[in-house]
This record gives sequence, C-alpha cells and structure tokens, in this order.
Amino acid sequence: MVPDYAKARQGKRAHYDEAAIHAILDTGLVGHVGFVADGRPMVMPMAYARCGGTLYLHGASKTRLMGLDGLKLCVTVTQLTGIVVARSSFHHSVNYRCAVVHGQARKVTDEEHARALDAITDHLLPGRSSELRGMTAQELKATGVIALDIEAASAKIRTGPPVEDPADLPSTLWGGVVPVVTALGTGIQDAHTPEGTLPPESLRKAQAKFIA
Amino acid sequence: MVPDYAKARQGKRAHYDEAAIHAILDTGLVGHVGFVADGRPMVMPMAYARCGGTLYLHGASKTRLMGLDGLKLCVTVTQLTGIVVARSSFHHSVNYRCAVVHGQARKVTDEEHARALDAITDHLLPGRSSELRGMTAQELKATGVIALDIEAASAKIRTGPPVEDPADLPSTLWGGVVPVVTALGTGIQDAHTPEGTLPPESLRKAQAKFIA
Repeated sequence: MVPDYAKARQGKRAHYDEAAIHAILDTGLVGHVGFVADGRPMVMPMAYARCGGTLYLHGASKTRLMGLDGLKLCVTVTQLTGIVVARSSFHHSVNYRCAVVHGQARKVTDEEHARALDAITDHLLPGRSSELRGMTAQELKATGVIALDIEAASAKIRTGPPVEDPADLPSTLWGGVVPVVTALGTGIQDAHTPEGTLPPESLRKAQAKFIA
Repeated sequence: MVPDYAKARQGKRAHYDEAAIHAILDTGLVGHVGFVADGRPMVMPMAYARCGGTLYLHGASKTRLMGLDGLKLCVTVTQLTGIVVARSSFHHSVNYRCAVVHGQARKVTDEEHARALDAITDHLLPGRSSELRGMTAQELKATGVIALDIEAASAKIRTGPPVEDPADLPSTLWGGVVPVVTALGTGIQDAHTPEGTLPPESLRKAQAKFIA
C-alpha cells in the first residue's frame, strides 16, 4: 500500500515498484534531502548510498545533518534525460527519471557507521573503499551518518517525443527531444600523483556507471 | 543581513552575494522544491525561471503545486561538476555549485502569469517562446504558476583538487578530480518534423548555455 503522501499526482508517469525506484537511486549522483527546521522546509544536496531498503547520508559531525535524528526526511534523486521541444509552449516538457523516498532519520553507529561510509564512497566510485586504507577512529568520529529506512517511495518517469495539440499539426516547425547527457570525463590527476600512475579501477567503473 | 535559517553550515564554501547565486540559478536545468505538507517534508523536481529577485515554478493547475500558495518554500539548484578522488575515504568529496533560496509561495495571475510561463520555456530554450504561437486561454488556465520572491539565499561552491591528510603523502595512489559533464546533445527530431528542417535557434542557444 502506498500512503497518500507518497503518491505522485500525475498518475500516468508514476511507478511504485521497488526495482524501478532502486534503479534510479543506484544511478544517481546526488540526492536532494528535505527536512523541516523551525517549520520551514530545507533542501540540501547530499551524497548518499542505498543498501537494501535503507538510504545513508553523511556529513561532518558538526553540521546540521546530525541534528536530524528522529525527524521525517524526504530524499529525491532526479536524472534529467532530455528537453522536449514541442510546437506550443504548453507542450514543452522534460524527460526525466526521479525517485522520491520518505522515512525517518536515524543516527547510525558502530559497524553500521563504518559500513555506511564505505557504501557512500563506493556509490560514486565502485570499489574505491577497498583501494584505500581503513578510516581512523578520529575520521569516523568526525563523520556522521544518518540512515533513512525507506517507508514509502515513488518514481516518476517521462520518456519519448512531445505530445502535440492536433490543431498544431501538420507543422513546419522542428520538434523533438534534445538529450541531456551527464557523464564522467577523463580524470585529472593532482600534483601528488606519481608520473605514469594509472587511474584506479574504481574510476573506470564509475565512468561506466554514470552515463545517461 | 542573512537570516540564520539561510546560513550555510560549512562557512568556508558559502557565498551570499547575489551575482554568485543568480549565476547558479540561471544555468541550472532543474530545481528541487521543498515544502511542508501535513508536517512532512516534500521535495519535488521542477522546471523554473528567475526574473529579477523572483523564481517562477509551473505545473498543471490540478497538481499539488497550486495548493502551495502562501506556504514557505525552499528551492535548491545544484550543479555537480566533479568527483574528488583522495588517498583516504575521509577526504573524498564532490565539486559542485548549489544555490538554496527561501521564500513564500505566491499564486501568479494575469500578465505576470503569461510572462512567467514564457520565462520558464525560455530558461531551458532561450528565445523559444517567440518562435511559437501564443498560449491559448485554455492552456493558460490549465497551467498554474507559483512565484517565490526570494527572501534569503545562499550559495555553496567547492572547486579544486582533493585535500589530503599529510600522513597519507607522499603516496603511490592516483588522486585528482573526475569531471562530471552535463551537456545537451544533438536534437532528435520527431516524426512531425518536415525533412530538412533545421533545429531552431533556441536549441542552439540552449546547447551553448547548458554545458559544465
């Protein structure tokens, strides 16, 4: 059962199956995290990772994030895939996939804490955490993790060419879709990288993963 | 004066000058709109446009959007520009620009309504509205617009290579930045486009505008 607050208002684009929602979450680069502070909505972009039915968010322990423990959260991951160019302003649109998930913030500790931090690193760079030394106790202490156990979620997906008003057809105007491409470029090594060092395997995996 | 709720918690990356904030808003493809519904945070991706100190959002009149009139909103526009690859999980990061704006939703009518709809179309495809017939009364009625007169805003920007723990240097590991590139591809014309029709000028302007 999808609770009313999690239902998409434009029914024809809505999906509620877990596979569709997870596929969007797992290929998104950034999540937009919504919470309520003093009655006011706040939306912050954050790195994240999904493990099973849980999303993990991290941030410096001293930031606003850790104060969210116990609060309701909404995390939205959006992938824009095209601009839809029609013969009328009214029928202009965008192609996109988005997942909207709801749950309550839960402060993460102990083994789950370290596991979640690895998962967040590995979400952007698959396998990166195993290419590196482990985190120190001080680093773990300085980095807080909030879990959101997904209580309800929906996805919205639009694909395909413009819809048109029949009165606008036939037309001499160009119409169609302009792809929005998001991809990782070639890594730019920093000054500490020894000459001739190849980028890590995790970077190649990320380049293969994040392309739309 | 920046009110406390609009202050970024990581001070070193924060900017409050209008030019920096407007530059991010004006080159973003999608905004994430936060509001509170029944005490619960909601975050929805939306097309938008900025005119002076006002953001406009639009949606079908029958959707949740028009019920926001009078409510507090937070709109966040994020451009991810790189994945920062360090020698420790702790120092992994992302390069990004984001603008977070706060204000109250105001239902838009009459001339401002039509002007705002043109601005939203022209934000994604500069000049597109003047390439098309005007909107009909029925189309205007079916499309609601909410304005957010910006009351407070902040920007956060991270650029540059990884920071490292001195204990991790010198290192044999690769470190640096992987660019995240977002750009518009070649337009794919639909079946209604007469053979040989060139894409409109607005599309070429969009291709020049949205590249990072």
